[in-house]
Amino acid sequence: MQKSAIIIGAGLVGSLWAVFLSKAGYKVNIYERRPDIRKAEISAGKSINLAMSMRGWTALETVGVDEEIRQISIAMSGRIMHDLDGKQNYQPYGKEGQAIYSVSRGGLNAKMMDIAEQRGGATIHYHHKCIDVELEKGRAHFENTETGEKISAQADVIFATDGAFSAARYNAFQKLDRFNYSQNYIEDGYRELLLPANADGSYKLDKNALHIWPRGRFMLIALANEDGSFTCTLFMPFDGEVSFNALKTDSDIQNFFKKTFPDFYDICPNLLQTWHSNPLSSLAIVRCFPWTHGKVALMGDAAHATVPFYGQGMNAGFEDCSVMYDLMKKHNENWPAVFKEYETLRKPDGDAVQDLSVQNYFVMRDFVADPRFLLQKKIEGRFSSLHPDKWTPLYTQVSFTNTRYSVALATGNRQDEIMRKVMDRPDIEQVWDSKEVEDAILKLVSEK
Amino acid sequence: MQKSAIIIGAGLVGSLWAVFLSKAGYKVNIYERRPDIRKAEISAGKSINLAMSMRGWTALETVGVDEEIRQISIAMSGRIMHDLDGKQNYQPYGKEGQAIYSVSRGGLNAKMMDIAEQRGGATIHYHHKCIDVELEKGRAHFENTETGEKISAQADVIFATDGAFSAARYNAFQKLDRFNYSQNYIEDGYRELLLPANADGSYKLDKNALHIWPRGRFMLIALANEDGSFTCTLFMPFDGEVSFNALKTDSDIQNFFKKTFPDFYDICPNLLQTWHSNPLSSLAIVRCFPWTHGKVALMGDAAHATVPFYGQGMNAGFEDCSVMYDLMKKHNENWPAVFKEYETLRKPDGDAVQDLSVQNYFVMRDFVADPRFLLQKKIEGRFSSLHPDKWTPLYTQVSFTNTRYSVALATGNRQDEIMRKVMDRPDIEQVWDSKEVEDAILKLVSEK
Repeated sequence: MQKSAIIIGAGLVGSLWAVFLSKAGYKVNIYERRPDIRKAEISAGKSINLAMSMRGWTALETVGVDEEIRQISIAMSGRIMHDLDGKQNYQPYGKEGQAIYSVSRGGLNAKMMDIAEQRGGATIHYHHKCIDVELEKGRAHFENTETGEKISAQADVIFATDGAFSAARYNAFQKLDRFNYSQNYIEDGYRELLLPANADGSYKLDKNALHIWPRGRFMLIALANEDGSFTCTLFMPFDGEVSFNALKTDSDIQNFFKKTFPDFYDICPNLLQTWHSNPLSSLAIVRCFPWTHGKVALMGDAAHATVPFYGQGMNAGFEDCSVMYDLMKKHNENWPAVFKEYETLRKPDGDAVQDLSVQNYFVMRDFVADPRFLLQKKIEGRFSSLHPDKWTPLYTQVSFTNTRYSVALATGNRQDEIMRKVMDRPDIEQVWDSKEVEDAILKLVSEK
Repeated sequence: MQKSAIIIGAGLVGSLWAVFLSKAGYKVNIYERRPDIRKAEISAGKSINLAMSMRGWTALETVGVDEEIRQISIAMSGRIMHDLDGKQNYQPYGKEGQAIYSVSRGGLNAKMMDIAEQRGGATIHYHHKCIDVELEKGRAHFENTETGEKISAQADVIFATDGAFSAARYNAFQKLDRFNYSQNYIEDGYRELLLPANADGSYKLDKNALHIWPRGRFMLIALANEDGSFTCTLFMPFDGEVSFNALKTDSDIQNFFKKTFPDFYDICPNLLQTWHSNPLSSLAIVRCFPWTHGKVALMGDAAHATVPFYGQGMNAGFEDCSVMYDLMKKHNENWPAVFKEYETLRKPDGDAVQDLSVQNYFVMRDFVADPRFLLQKKIEGRFSSLHPDKWTPLYTQVSFTNTRYSVALATGNRQDEIMRKVMDRPDIEQVWDSKEVEDAILKLVSEK
């Protein structure tokens, strides 16, 4: 009899994981609460453009679907900061040739579903809302949201990839004794805005960069779409002096943009219309443990939803697929052994990518505009190019390697300690590119 | 029309709060998932005997039911530690006349239900499982677990007092956007044991103390019941070298007790029988916020469930009633204003009682057997009796005053800092009761 798997949720991670499982010989049934997004209108407004980086590509390459995705992605080799005068300042993300890739969530998801069905032979059942999972039996229960019909399905193994508010987790895992769980909302929300293309279809900003308007306690970002437009996102506190709730009228909104993002305001004639056509959304970090029970495993956001500030949510979910797949092979598909090692090995990385994501919010909204931070990054960059075996910058570790997140975080913290000492020199601005500073870092690095 | 309230959960806090609301002129309907515990057999095994202290008594006095409860409680004026040789060592909890009171959860709950019905005029509906709450409308939905019938009820205001795993919180609050929530299980579980009375009905241990067998990483405690027996509880890790899961056979259990709690083993002939008749249970801390939404408020464990090591879970819940009642009067029953101040004012105290409870586990299972800790407590006790206006020991603040938990915690931390400096003197064991040490503490206290 053919091996069988159920996947709950046909999002990015679910549809990619279906391809992995098919490759391993499993008959895969995917149950998805929503209608087929390829037939429905693709819903904008709650997407946050995605940035595919190394970990994502690595997983896609394993199942041979990376080329198709590259065709719908746009390379971003660095950040462009926009200051209050509209002046732009470019910071490369890594070395020549290194980039992260802007890709639309809707487009990517549709593509992944195509691949899961056509290449993976998966069957996707739409309008199926998960109402319960019998974890030890490997049986899931769904309600058809169109007909009200209740159906059950059983398989050798079940994967819940149904996102930060996973119904499988809520209805089954969260009722287990000794299940640790937390959902913590940050104080900030976000609202998407669409910056349209020029009349001739050309881009209004450099498409090969991630644009940031860093303003200390809040920020605006923009990532290019394939059609010449940019998906922009304003991140800001819900409440307080400068906040979403303080922008009560249309003129409040216009004045805020005119004053705070003047160059953006000048090129975004449809500001009010795009503002009102997108919802205000919240941002949460979800932690839980264990990630597996009986025949069921949580993957992606269902296990470790994070805030989007390192562009690693999808990449972490795709890396879950790589990790699970390696363990399937290692343990010869002995699922209890696979699940045990998956959750033990991967949990510290889930925690770490969340910590990194929170840290990077401060970097993006504030530090990138701070001359001391920029000088520190220059010193790190110089040292790293002179001694690449001794220093890989944190951003590079996270975005351009497959180093475990937990290791990257620990190394990054250690580097920060070293750089605090280096930056303490009163004459650091004069001597930053000296042999003396290089030797001082060498000494500090070798100390541990 | 008479003012109306719904209470979800007829536990200790729910039935006490019904008396408060009745006093304020509300018609109260209580919906309880379980059958009437006064008619069913009182279920032991998951109770952990309760220790009523000042905050509990204060709430009971407000509605004039303290005398009835005193009649079913047993004063415990201190701890008796049992060492490995069976030697006993007494530590008073406070000053002469200060005590906490052992009371059985089942007995207390039955009594509170009687009072709510007879004195409060409340109606208790049993077998009603809460399946949903419309928070803004003040409408709650229940399923009768005997008949399957679904019923709805509406009132001016609703209180969820349905415990750590509150169905009202789970089905309604936990689905709200931006609701912060965490449930964290500690590594330890507990199992209750019943130490019976002597044949003549007398107690096998001093009934006016809380007995502790502190063993570092785990502990056994015993609290007296009215009938001559003691309810004992073993707290221990689930897993590891010394753990519940390491005790696999009856002889493992007997050997463990013989070696670890020899004096207890000698007086507990029914060890195996009582061991097997009680379940192994887990312990969690549940935090959430906000505690109110629309017409509904969470109180007691539903808002801030804690571990039992300070004996404050029930006391904190009863104090919620005092706080809510004071705010009802302050805001003239303007419920939106009451709810806003209730959650803002009380949340730091909910967090603090949880932190205090975790801290006190270390005190009970470990420090109470540490000569340095005992010396520190002697020095604090001496200083406090010489300068009662300058030093109230933490245990006294928590158990014998109505000082806010958050203030007690902060004061306790400050006292710990001071005592660390005092205990650092190499000759402290010789000079602990000297004027010099007293003056040193006076100076440290005045520094901030």
